[in-house]
Amino acid sequence: MKTYCINLVRVAAIVLIAISWTVPALAQEPLPSWNDTAPKKAIVTFVERVTRQGSPEFVPEAERIATFDNDGTLWAEQPIYFQLALALDRVKELAPLHPEWKDQEPFSSLLKGDLKGALAGGEPAIFEIVTVTHSGMTTEEFEKIVRDWITTAKHPVTGRLYTEMVYQPMLELLAYPRANGFKTFIVSGGGIDFMRVFAERVYGIPPEQVAGSSGKLAFELRDGKPLLMKLPTLNFNDDKAGKPVGIQMHIGRQPIAAFGNSDGDLQMLEWAKGGGGVRFALIVHHTDAEREWAYDRTSSIGRLDKALDAAQAEGWTVVDMKNDWKNIFPFGSK
Amino acid sequence: MKTYCINLVRVAAIVLIAISWTVPALAQEPLPSWNDTAPKKAIVTFVERVTRQGSPEFVPEAERIATFDNDGTLWAEQPIYFQLALALDRVKELAPLHPEWKDQEPFSSLLKGDLKGALAGGEPAIFEIVTVTHSGMTTEEFEKIVRDWITTAKHPVTGRLYTEMVYQPMLELLAYPRANGFKTFIVSGGGIDFMRVFAERVYGIPPEQVAGSSGKLAFELRDGKPLLMKLPTLNFNDDKAGKPVGIQMHIGRQPIAAFGNSDGDLQMLEWAKGGGGVRFALIVHHTDAEREWAYDRTSSIGRLDKALDAAQAEGWTVVDMKNDWKNIFPFGSK
Repeated sequence: MKTYCINLVRVAAIVLIAISWTVPALAQEPLPSWNDTAPKKAIVTFVERVTRQGSPEFVPEAERIATFDNDGTLWAEQPIYFQLALALDRVKELAPLHPEWKDQEPFSSLLKGDLKGALAGGEPAIFEIVTVTHSGMTTEEFEKIVRDWITTAKHPVTGRLYTEMVYQPMLELLAYPRANGFKTFIVSGGGIDFMRVFAERVYGIPPEQVAGSSGKLAFELRDGKPLLMKLPTLNFNDDKAGKPVGIQMHIGRQPIAAFGNSDGDLQMLEWAKGGGGVRFALIVHHTDAEREWAYDRTSSIGRLDKALDAAQAEGWTVVDMKNDWKNIFPFGSK
Repeated sequence: MKTYCINLVRVAAIVLIAISWTVPALAQEPLPSWNDTAPKKAIVTFVERVTRQGSPEFVPEAERIATFDNDGTLWAEQPIYFQLALALDRVKELAPLHPEWKDQEPFSSLLKGDLKGALAGGEPAIFEIVTVTHSGMTTEEFEKIVRDWITTAKHPVTGRLYTEMVYQPMLELLAYPRANGFKTFIVSGGGIDFMRVFAERVYGIPPEQVAGSSGKLAFELRDGKPLLMKLPTLNFNDDKAGKPVGIQMHIGRQPIAAFGNSDGDLQMLEWAKGGGGVRFALIVHHTDAEREWAYDRTSSIGRLDKALDAAQAEGWTVVDMKNDWKNIFPFGSK
């Protein structure tokens, strides 16, 4: 049998290359856009505690479920929810087909450019605007409407695409638990069909890991081709006490970590904290009027009042955007 | 620099071991419990076509969604749906708390041991039995009820645990696409909370990949502890035209393959076949009275009538259990 002489350094190099193929790149410092303040430390400590093999706090990968709100948590929500901006654009496009809207609120005000007047009707007005613009078409047609809009419409303040208005620190906060065996889900009051169009590309979250509000659907065959029609009826409101329900329906496991920013997330955070073992709840507090927006207890969009009290009482992690985040958006700030 | 002399055979062995760690064991012959008849060939051909790199028929992994019915497709459903067997056992256990059931159908017949009389009321009777046994407790309490039952109750004909009454060929048909980058989902008329208790252990399908029928839930805090109450109201019937709706709500992508056994699966199969590119639809036809059960067009459980016509008209794959399966259950046959 022939033997060969081999340089040990070369063998070591080959072994190292082989290892680098098999062991996922262990992240450099996690959460680079976060300052070294309490929230970053709390996140890293939590992830390390539940992933430490042999520790009594260890959580198996299958149970490492983390749920994230979308509006105001993963992307901005000012001056109005982005999905509502889509709905308003659609009302203008559809107006020629609806001459009756001229004398009918909230459409009448809206078409005159009076957004405040249109929204004076509160949630019923918003619900009507969303309903007429989100039903009466197939799921495939709606997906195309969203895709066309989301790749062209610009944010009124920054002039950026809405999908650029995502928080860089939160993109890192999706990636970091994921790199540690977590499965990340969106659980949002926003429309499930709306978010699924961009969630995979923007957040790395596939459609099957998006839970949200929805209208009823009807299956039918049209000329032999199956389709799903979007009906003008609410199916599920995935907000407030609906969030734990949406989580159970969609995921079927209690999350061990949840991330939100408003009173709409309170029950989701309670639900995540309510199970046994080590749990994590985090609230993004919008405190940076210069780089983003500053609002909380009295805002009509993303009100944070009861959930802020709960966070303080329960010791949940509260992110002060101004002090805890180095960057806001991938492109910088407002 | 020091050099070492190494035997080339030993180096080759080490490299081979390293490769065997990194490359997933490429399956031996797939579907070993399937005879080499048309259905096995059709399945293998389909999987090979959509996974062939560079082919115009190639489907990216993220879109390789396969949906499976449960009752009669993954496990047996005779002489009655297994979840109904749980409900009947629960009625007996709960009877002392409900003296009024003595004079109230379907409970009265049921408690006298007259199953046929109890079920004479048809779907409303079944719905009532399921409702009283599947609501009025928390999701956590219900999970415990199911876990206790499913690990002890025995099938009336075989004396086996219900989770042993799964079809060995179908377990292989879950594993084979999964080993080829597919994500497998259950989409069943059965209860979502019921199936999730055993789906991971028995089928390798995690709770978040189980879609099914459900009752409404209510989130509440009891002594500060969050919980979800199961209410006596139907939330969603994941059967027939409900299946494509359940798929859209839960998965948000049109499956490229679907597997069923009854008219309840017809629309799911149509939906899977309705998209572009290469698609696959399969029906398990219960033809083996000796090793399992034989039933189709006139059965009250798992009726296969319209879907069998559709399969023949559309050229879907129909499994003749008697001729196409070498084995039925992991333990043998009935």
